[in-house]
Amino acid sequence: MRVSFDVMKSQIKKVFIKYGMSDEKAEVCARIHTESSNDGIYSHGSNRVARFVGYIKKGWVDINAEPSLEKEFGAVKVFNGNMGPGILNALHATDCGIELAEKYGIGMVGLKNTTHWMRGGSYGLYAAERGYIAISWTNTESCMPPWGGKDCKLGNNPFVMAMPGVANPIMLDMAMSQYAYGKLQVTRLAGKRLPFPGGFDKNGNITDEPGPIEESMRILPMGYWKGSSFAFMLDVLGAVLADGVSAADIDTIGKGSCGGASQVFIIIDPKKATAEAELKKTIDKAITHIKSSALSENSMGIIFPGEDYVKARKNHAENGILVDDSIWEEILTL
Amino acid sequence: MRVSFDVMKSQIKKVFIKYGMSDEKAEVCARIHTESSNDGIYSHGSNRVARFVGYIKKGWVDINAEPSLEKEFGAVKVFNGNMGPGILNALHATDCGIELAEKYGIGMVGLKNTTHWMRGGSYGLYAAERGYIAISWTNTESCMPPWGGKDCKLGNNPFVMAMPGVANPIMLDMAMSQYAYGKLQVTRLAGKRLPFPGGFDKNGNITDEPGPIEESMRILPMGYWKGSSFAFMLDVLGAVLADGVSAADIDTIGKGSCGGASQVFIIIDPKKATAEAELKKTIDKAITHIKSSALSENSMGIIFPGEDYVKARKNHAENGILVDDSIWEEILTL
Repeated sequence: MRVSFDVMKSQIKKVFIKYGMSDEKAEVCARIHTESSNDGIYSHGSNRVARFVGYIKKGWVDINAEPSLEKEFGAVKVFNGNMGPGILNALHATDCGIELAEKYGIGMVGLKNTTHWMRGGSYGLYAAERGYIAISWTNTESCMPPWGGKDCKLGNNPFVMAMPGVANPIMLDMAMSQYAYGKLQVTRLAGKRLPFPGGFDKNGNITDEPGPIEESMRILPMGYWKGSSFAFMLDVLGAVLADGVSAADIDTIGKGSCGGASQVFIIIDPKKATAEAELKKTIDKAITHIKSSALSENSMGIIFPGEDYVKARKNHAENGILVDDSIWEEILTL
Repeated sequence: MRVSFDVMKSQIKKVFIKYGMSDEKAEVCARIHTESSNDGIYSHGSNRVARFVGYIKKGWVDINAEPSLEKEFGAVKVFNGNMGPGILNALHATDCGIELAEKYGIGMVGLKNTTHWMRGGSYGLYAAERGYIAISWTNTESCMPPWGGKDCKLGNNPFVMAMPGVANPIMLDMAMSQYAYGKLQVTRLAGKRLPFPGGFDKNGNITDEPGPIEESMRILPMGYWKGSSFAFMLDVLGAVLADGVSAADIDTIGKGSCGGASQVFIIIDPKKATAEAELKKTIDKAITHIKSSALSENSMGIIFPGEDYVKARKNHAENGILVDDSIWEEILTL
């Protein structure tokens, strides 16, 4: 079904207030969830509301906790998220990073002891809409085998790069696995195969059939050994820069997905390097360049990172935000 | 054949001096080339000496140029590389980044108008050996099709993340394609297939046969659309943060691979976030964690990023550095 932005946001806000959030905090969290759905990232928008409420009920997220500053040096700050709502902690860290970038040209904020930030791209877009560049990531619990192994010992750590664009921010938000579990499920339910192999079956055969991969939990890192190494770097660098923990410890905390995770927010003011008019020209030229390629056979077009969310927004503005009937039903009854 | 570190370095230095470099600069460039070979990255060590000399002869690299500071604000500096030797420019940028990180906890150096930095990992290791974290990348000329396209309109931009480790630095140095052209060539000459598909033939069929990919130049980005988007971000972010140019312009400069490229060096002092003893414990735990996975079928082991260069160093220290007979012959006669 389709629901307007305002209806979705106010309904989610109502749910969060019901479970104890202040009006102000519920407003922000509801806005971020709704924006994610509005950008086409339903999995981390409307579809995560019930799970977040479950986390509150179990005491995995402390809705009243505020981030507290633990370390500070020049353009670096480290916060303890105190297991507060991941969205609010991450926005606080991004705001601090922007302040540091304003003062020093670049700033780095480490955030430990936080909870699921939902869609990483939210914070990249937040910074880019305000004129800044963001390089950011979170570590997670182990949910992917390292290359050469068969047990899940690696986080599927999303990595975000965002910058102001010509009309809208350019933004990359990618996890380290080739496919999300959600994609495996949707593909299996549709009785289809993945466009490219997505993991191994339990006997170690690489396969494009989603079912056997869901069963073995042996999802493929993007680019095989490359995504595996990148995921490891993000995990350990995240822990070190946030003075927090890596997947090994997140696994034992027992407070749900990303409960106790470490996050990094590097924010840069591009105007300290490139004049604003020049920046737009540079971006425009780079976009024109990749789009000048002849299309490949069966191409679905050449898009730059972030072009898809703009398209989703346009569709949703015209028709309302797409939401699964059962998901919306659940939100109404939470 | 095998050549000792000192013999290789002094021979390469002799060559560089012959082509006009000062003793001091030739020493540094020869050391970096030799270290790359010593770390097992022959393609960017001994195997690049002749090509670099070719660039000097053609006037593509100005061996006497020095980087000049163009912009400065807080913890951000932007240099013009003035088409000087890529190795010297990149080391200068890394040194400046370290100074900034020492003062502000984090620093960002943009470097435009530079030339091929050879192995990106050199600068990551340089920073990590001195106790710093490095996040760094370069853009390049177009040499890979964007996802959905068939023409080379995207750089194969290497991305580097390095940090101090328990014994040796941990370091990720990865280009955006699934395989390097060198790997395609070696595999073809050995009459073998790639372990996984590496690109498309000229008719758009995905293939693990190296020959048809070399012919079509349609190499695969790692993780398909993911590596394509990541490569684009690095290209345009590199241009913006260095006040320089993207692949679209590098293609037209006509001064060889990476001639006129833009590079970014983000350097962070981890001690501002995590105490040194804690850092080693965090890394050790993360390494133990991934290695605790059962091995997959036909596994070649689970390694962390950077484990391979330590292994290569050990072998080379015992037996001399491996170098192709014809490559060494060529260096001797340059």
